[in-house]
Amino acid sequence: MYSSNLIPVENALKLIESVKITLKKEDIPLEEANTRVLAENIEVLIDVPPFDRSAMDGYALIAEDTVMASKSNPIYLEVIDEIGAGSVSNHTLSQGHAIRIATGAPMPPGSNAVVMEEDIEHLDNKIKITKKVAFNRDVALKGEDLKKGEIILKEGQILDPNHLSVIASSGYSRVKVFKKPEVGVIITGNELVDPTTNLEPGKIVNSNRFALKGLVEDSLAVPHIKHCRDDLDTMANELHEYAQKYDVVITTGGTAISKGDVVVSATSKLGEVLVHGVAIKPGKPVGFGVVNNKPVFMLSGYPVAAAVQFDIFTRNYILKMQNIYKKFDLIECTAGDDIRSSKGKCNIIRAKLEEDRVYPIKTKAGINKSAVLSNCYIFIDEDTKDIKKGEKCNILKYSSLKVFE
Amino acid sequence: MYSSNLIPVENALKLIESVKITLKKEDIPLEEANTRVLAENIEVLIDVPPFDRSAMDGYALIAEDTVMASKSNPIYLEVIDEIGAGSVSNHTLSQGHAIRIATGAPMPPGSNAVVMEEDIEHLDNKIKITKKVAFNRDVALKGEDLKKGEIILKEGQILDPNHLSVIASSGYSRVKVFKKPEVGVIITGNELVDPTTNLEPGKIVNSNRFALKGLVEDSLAVPHIKHCRDDLDTMANELHEYAQKYDVVITTGGTAISKGDVVVSATSKLGEVLVHGVAIKPGKPVGFGVVNNKPVFMLSGYPVAAAVQFDIFTRNYILKMQNIYKKFDLIECTAGDDIRSSKGKCNIIRAKLEEDRVYPIKTKAGINKSAVLSNCYIFIDEDTKDIKKGEKCNILKYSSLKVFE
Repeated sequence: MYSSNLIPVENALKLIESVKITLKKEDIPLEEANTRVLAENIEVLIDVPPFDRSAMDGYALIAEDTVMASKSNPIYLEVIDEIGAGSVSNHTLSQGHAIRIATGAPMPPGSNAVVMEEDIEHLDNKIKITKKVAFNRDVALKGEDLKKGEIILKEGQILDPNHLSVIASSGYSRVKVFKKPEVGVIITGNELVDPTTNLEPGKIVNSNRFALKGLVEDSLAVPHIKHCRDDLDTMANELHEYAQKYDVVITTGGTAISKGDVVVSATSKLGEVLVHGVAIKPGKPVGFGVVNNKPVFMLSGYPVAAAVQFDIFTRNYILKMQNIYKKFDLIECTAGDDIRSSKGKCNIIRAKLEEDRVYPIKTKAGINKSAVLSNCYIFIDEDTKDIKKGEKCNILKYSSLKVFE
Repeated sequence: MYSSNLIPVENALKLIESVKITLKKEDIPLEEANTRVLAENIEVLIDVPPFDRSAMDGYALIAEDTVMASKSNPIYLEVIDEIGAGSVSNHTLSQGHAIRIATGAPMPPGSNAVVMEEDIEHLDNKIKITKKVAFNRDVALKGEDLKKGEIILKEGQILDPNHLSVIASSGYSRVKVFKKPEVGVIITGNELVDPTTNLEPGKIVNSNRFALKGLVEDSLAVPHIKHCRDDLDTMANELHEYAQKYDVVITTGGTAISKGDVVVSATSKLGEVLVHGVAIKPGKPVGFGVVNNKPVFMLSGYPVAAAVQFDIFTRNYILKMQNIYKKFDLIECTAGDDIRSSKGKCNIIRAKLEEDRVYPIKTKAGINKSAVLSNCYIFIDEDTKDIKKGEKCNILKYSSLKVFE
């Protein structure tokens, strides 16, 4: 059916990449920005610290007062005030005086060093110092952490808790990020029903609904899932609506003869089909098109094929819509067993990597259990024949596909 | 202050681990279970496929009818019905007959093989077959994917989209998972205000609020953040309330002299302090206690110290509450520069790993910018002195701390 006009995976990816992406931005409260992608450079708005402050619990003093201090020649300073964190002192420090100060509290005017609590002795309202305190000792200087005007983070950064902390300190309570793509998922298949232990004859559990929701979520996008009957008019209506409402449409199923390729037909009717049939196994009937300027990924109904198609064709596109650029990180390792492949196709075989050996999961194409037994794909390109036990092969770890590796 | 009674990191971790965890479970809809931790074994409830079904678009037939088929001796079968996915046929197949069948549709009674659409020719209501079709060819047998009664996933599994798909197929629409811990976070500090470009004198931006929210979220738990003034009674009231309402309490700040260690005092008043002061740098004043049988992690106010304390003492505890067991994955690499350390303490230095060399970020303790310049910690234990450029040292990659590596 497709065998005559299957296109190589690379070509399919190029056609998919040719569909232009407009990155959308939004302004959100900083506390909601964890794992979001920064859509602006962060320029520091205020010096941090905003003032010279004490880095220790101790006493602010004038360093010059202590130049001669030693055990045999202790010096005594009068404590004239106390500054807690968040408070300021009204006193300007003059010779012979000290002010008790908390970590983080602003240095009182006139002072230029802090002596630690541990290094002094108390005598009534005086402190005894037996060692010279250096200029700026235990003072955090204004702007030494973040300097007003410097660019501290750049557009495209995926934000983590550390970043949020630094952005807050830089003076921001809101931040511009790339909008999460809204992804419409249309699951076709009259035979599909919700999970049940009492399946009617001919019915099958709609497992793709759960997988696709998770796959879209893991791509940092927002899934909107719908089940649609295998009927061209219904499908065309749904596709039309979803291509209006959402940024991307994904479909599953709709390629069996009795259904007359409803999904591909609907896409063709409403827009353009750019890819239909790729030299990949599993996943050969994968399609890609454009409706209302929105990309439409047409995946198989079989869960194993749909998962491979999402992994190879869809995920990185959705990430790119958020300014996240991922490449396939193929690594070489040794086959722990013979691996069969079909020549003329890119074979993507679920497998288990154990230490430095990879073992193909030997099942038929329709067997989804392999999903939970495997942790990587073996990649065998169009030109390579079977691989023998002990030979080298390329693998793609599932973990390497994730945004957060 | 603490130097006399600092305890080693290991001992602190042992004391923390000694506080018993009761894992809580909940039953949730399967579509919400992505990234949740399974709290039950998944026993397959129905055979998958639930019936013998066609693995191809083609024609269901009786394999024996084709035994003699060849190019020179084609055989002809009469097509008596058509079965779409989700439908069943009322016919029982008898010799000389075939039924058109869609991928996934149930094999009609009497049939035992499928010939692919591509391998036949049509002649009116007959199909022409020129090659033997093997018994069970292109038939997916009942139960060949999932067998009723088998255990397909075990308690403790972190669920991903592949797992959800297999659980759905196994007959489940809901699933039992470990409850996300509710984590109360009390940020203390009179000096702390929301991010602004107009800081009043003595005030500082409350950046910990953002960092802690994200850190708790990344630990798959639910944060409840509150800012509290440095006052023993207020603090004790808040702590009392949070230790009632939530599963874990985290505090930041409250160790400066002028505040009189309000957090530690409040914990001591309401419960028990098990740790106060650890031989770690930064993060020495870290505390840990129990109030209302709930663990209370008392972190520093300084963002750099609080982050280290969370990474070393808190995250893995929160994960363990969800049945996720993480260990610190120290790896050896080469110092790209001289690294200074304080003897007698475990030194944890923010650093940047570039290829196989690690470079310490040279800043003072209060400098949080290091958070966004670094990608790992250098670990230098109590007994090791400074490390020279080119010598080996242990590092802990930030990425290795995450649940999803």
